[in-house]
Amino acid sequence: MSQQSPLLFAIDRTSKTPIFEQICESIRRQAHSGRLKPGITVPATRTLAGELSVSRSTVVTAYEQLVAEGYLQGRRGAGYTLCAIGSVELPASKITAVPMESVPQLELKPLAPSEPDMRLFPYRQWAKAVARVCRTEPEAMLLCDETFGNLALRQAIAEHVREWRDIEASAEQIIVTAGASDALNICLRTLIATDQSVGIEDPGYQPITQLLKSQGIRPVWLDVDQDGARLPCSENQPTAVVITPSHQYPLGGVMSPQRRAAYINWANHQQGWIIEDDYDSEFRYGGRPIPALAGFDALHRTLYIGSFAKIFSNRLRLGYLIVPKSLIDPMRQTMDNFGLRAGLMPQQALAEFMRSGDFYRHLRRVRKRYNERRRFLVEQLKAGFSQFGTVQDYPAGMQLVFHLNNDLDDREVAQRAQQLGIGVETLSDSTARALHYNGLVLGFSGYSPEEMRESLSNLQQLLSR
Amino acid sequence: MSQQSPLLFAIDRTSKTPIFEQICESIRRQAHSGRLKPGITVPATRTLAGELSVSRSTVVTAYEQLVAEGYLQGRRGAGYTLCAIGSVELPASKITAVPMESVPQLELKPLAPSEPDMRLFPYRQWAKAVARVCRTEPEAMLLCDETFGNLALRQAIAEHVREWRDIEASAEQIIVTAGASDALNICLRTLIATDQSVGIEDPGYQPITQLLKSQGIRPVWLDVDQDGARLPCSENQPTAVVITPSHQYPLGGVMSPQRRAAYINWANHQQGWIIEDDYDSEFRYGGRPIPALAGFDALHRTLYIGSFAKIFSNRLRLGYLIVPKSLIDPMRQTMDNFGLRAGLMPQQALAEFMRSGDFYRHLRRVRKRYNERRRFLVEQLKAGFSQFGTVQDYPAGMQLVFHLNNDLDDREVAQRAQQLGIGVETLSDSTARALHYNGLVLGFSGYSPEEMRESLSNLQQLLSR
Repeated sequence: MSQQSPLLFAIDRTSKTPIFEQICESIRRQAHSGRLKPGITVPATRTLAGELSVSRSTVVTAYEQLVAEGYLQGRRGAGYTLCAIGSVELPASKITAVPMESVPQLELKPLAPSEPDMRLFPYRQWAKAVARVCRTEPEAMLLCDETFGNLALRQAIAEHVREWRDIEASAEQIIVTAGASDALNICLRTLIATDQSVGIEDPGYQPITQLLKSQGIRPVWLDVDQDGARLPCSENQPTAVVITPSHQYPLGGVMSPQRRAAYINWANHQQGWIIEDDYDSEFRYGGRPIPALAGFDALHRTLYIGSFAKIFSNRLRLGYLIVPKSLIDPMRQTMDNFGLRAGLMPQQALAEFMRSGDFYRHLRRVRKRYNERRRFLVEQLKAGFSQFGTVQDYPAGMQLVFHLNNDLDDREVAQRAQQLGIGVETLSDSTARALHYNGLVLGFSGYSPEEMRESLSNLQQLLSR
Repeated sequence: MSQQSPLLFAIDRTSKTPIFEQICESIRRQAHSGRLKPGITVPATRTLAGELSVSRSTVVTAYEQLVAEGYLQGRRGAGYTLCAIGSVELPASKITAVPMESVPQLELKPLAPSEPDMRLFPYRQWAKAVARVCRTEPEAMLLCDETFGNLALRQAIAEHVREWRDIEASAEQIIVTAGASDALNICLRTLIATDQSVGIEDPGYQPITQLLKSQGIRPVWLDVDQDGARLPCSENQPTAVVITPSHQYPLGGVMSPQRRAAYINWANHQQGWIIEDDYDSEFRYGGRPIPALAGFDALHRTLYIGSFAKIFSNRLRLGYLIVPKSLIDPMRQTMDNFGLRAGLMPQQALAEFMRSGDFYRHLRRVRKRYNERRRFLVEQLKAGFSQFGTVQDYPAGMQLVFHLNNDLDDREVAQRAQQLGIGVETLSDSTARALHYNGLVLGFSGYSPEEMRESLSNLQQLLSR
């Protein structure tokens, strides 16, 4: 125990009371009994987590709960101290159940793009799905002889994309991957020889550029206009293209039907492959949902990449790849050669979670919330930032772009914002060829209006200087 | 339901009876009631798994159980048919609990190296550890703000390597990775610039060669003699070496103390790095355990790679990397840049599993069993194969080498063995420079003596021809 706090904890792992609540209860009792004096510093979250051998998020949960209850003050990073409290006795066994939804987001960096708000996540329902697998099919967490991953999950994904993305695929065309980048890796390994090139969007998601370069694959840049990514120019034909037709990253537009048709023609003529990266398709807030290009093409020459990172956080490490029937055997070869990257443990539980409907209840709930947050951010930008630039608003996704006036430099702004703990990204950093783009990529999904308000106020001051 | 079998299944997911047992029970009842006639074919495992939306391993478990009980005959691949049974009534509610340990290994390929026997795995205890996390810290399955992974697991690993490998490391030096290859990848990304080279053993584990080449890193070959991997020759100095001092793969020897000292001298003189791949250190069957090189070097210029794949099967996708204190910051940089590959979900549960002692009880149990299997295989080879070559026996690991006489070609033998469903590998395929090695790599850990006996008898006939 650290010197500042003679705290005593008796954690009972067999108890039905969650550990974070046991920590809360322990601190409450010692505060009330007078063992702990006001002003005392409680152990750092990392220290206490280490001493109790619990995860740090458990301690953060407990401390944040006690802040909410008025026992502690302070915040993560700065440390927590005990507040002065009256000498009221706590009722003997009144442990208030805290809804799991109040678990705080860790390392909150307001306005950072693409972050799901994990405080809204239904941990209890997810834990129920996992516990059901523990009870009924424990071996499914470790054994699977399907090269492409758990069959029940692949069936659930097939239903999901049929309903949500207009893609007709059977489970045998679906590969469970360790996230979207693993899916792209599998595509590259299967389709691209070392001397071939791949078309990618510029501006675009730069980790894709890095992935290509690290494998010695030459990128062919695809400009982006109002219709979406442009076709590769005629003298420079890549073997495949990686595009984001539903929601261009980072600019945010939707690829026009004409351009989609042109891509499908291109693929058929060139015998090329379209890799559709549908990174945040679940979040569309108005109008009719735009079907996936893969559905339009009937999975003829299109491969479709989906991810669960936008719903479960990146730490689940699960995504999926849907391939044309003609590619099932070559994909199996790749998976056999390079090995499976996707962990098996969450797969059956995720199938249960989707099947039970809890997945969709959560999705509907956060979509509504993210849309409110998007509207709030757009209003704030229109009201208070019009002298600095213009907001580009599309009713989709988890972030939007604010184009800066020419007298402001996006990288400089972002760097100074980072120092204030604001996680904005820039268009300049999204272009591989240093194209002239100058704007901020602002995430809204991960933060409450109040949290955004504070950051926006700081950002406004920063821009005014 | 398939045409061959008018089987009816009522699966109750809320029941406490495991699903595989519900499938068994359903078939038993219909067999006894006469609804199912002897000789009828039951649905293929894949088909039934699809129809019931359960994992295929669950159906395989059920069918294998019914084979053991005499209700079904046949085997995976060939299909299962119902046996003729008497008209004895089953007692009304006598569901025999089947020990989870009877779960069959999927895709059994006898004598394939490095395979843990997942039939021996304590699924119930593992499920208990997972269920405990579901109950007490559900958020720990999805949230973690530690760049290097779950803290409780890193503490459990620190204890593990202190006790088992003589390595003194604190949790802050430990990175949870998505298996051993992810760990190696993190090392390469942190330590190696594109124009630098890395020393690797030849013969050695070929996926390492492929990983290097796919990243454009030049390999420097390290020959292997009786003392273990030799040092890089003087004109060709790599930045790092990847070596297997505890148990050379595939030859099986242990690096001598003199050679170990020479490597540590080399690293200090050249400012080079030693990456110690301790892939199957848990399985040592005699003599005193050989401490890790990383412990000997006090983690000064040695990085240590461990894996859980040999205990949990590869499908858990977890391993770990232990780094010198001087590399903590550079490693953090790499993890921030390239992202985390390790899934968070199993981490807290694995910490529980290690802490509860179930992990070690299992380890002791399989080690005993694997050692019996190793002895069996050595005896069989000495007794019946001496005219074909010589067995090289070390009391460690999960496979051994049988050196073939010159009139036999290991690749040809392995190819023909594969056709008989025997999973042997070859020394020829383990050498990157086509060195003259001629031998079979025979795994013993994954198979019972009876299973090996059958394969060995086939192998013997094949060699005699």
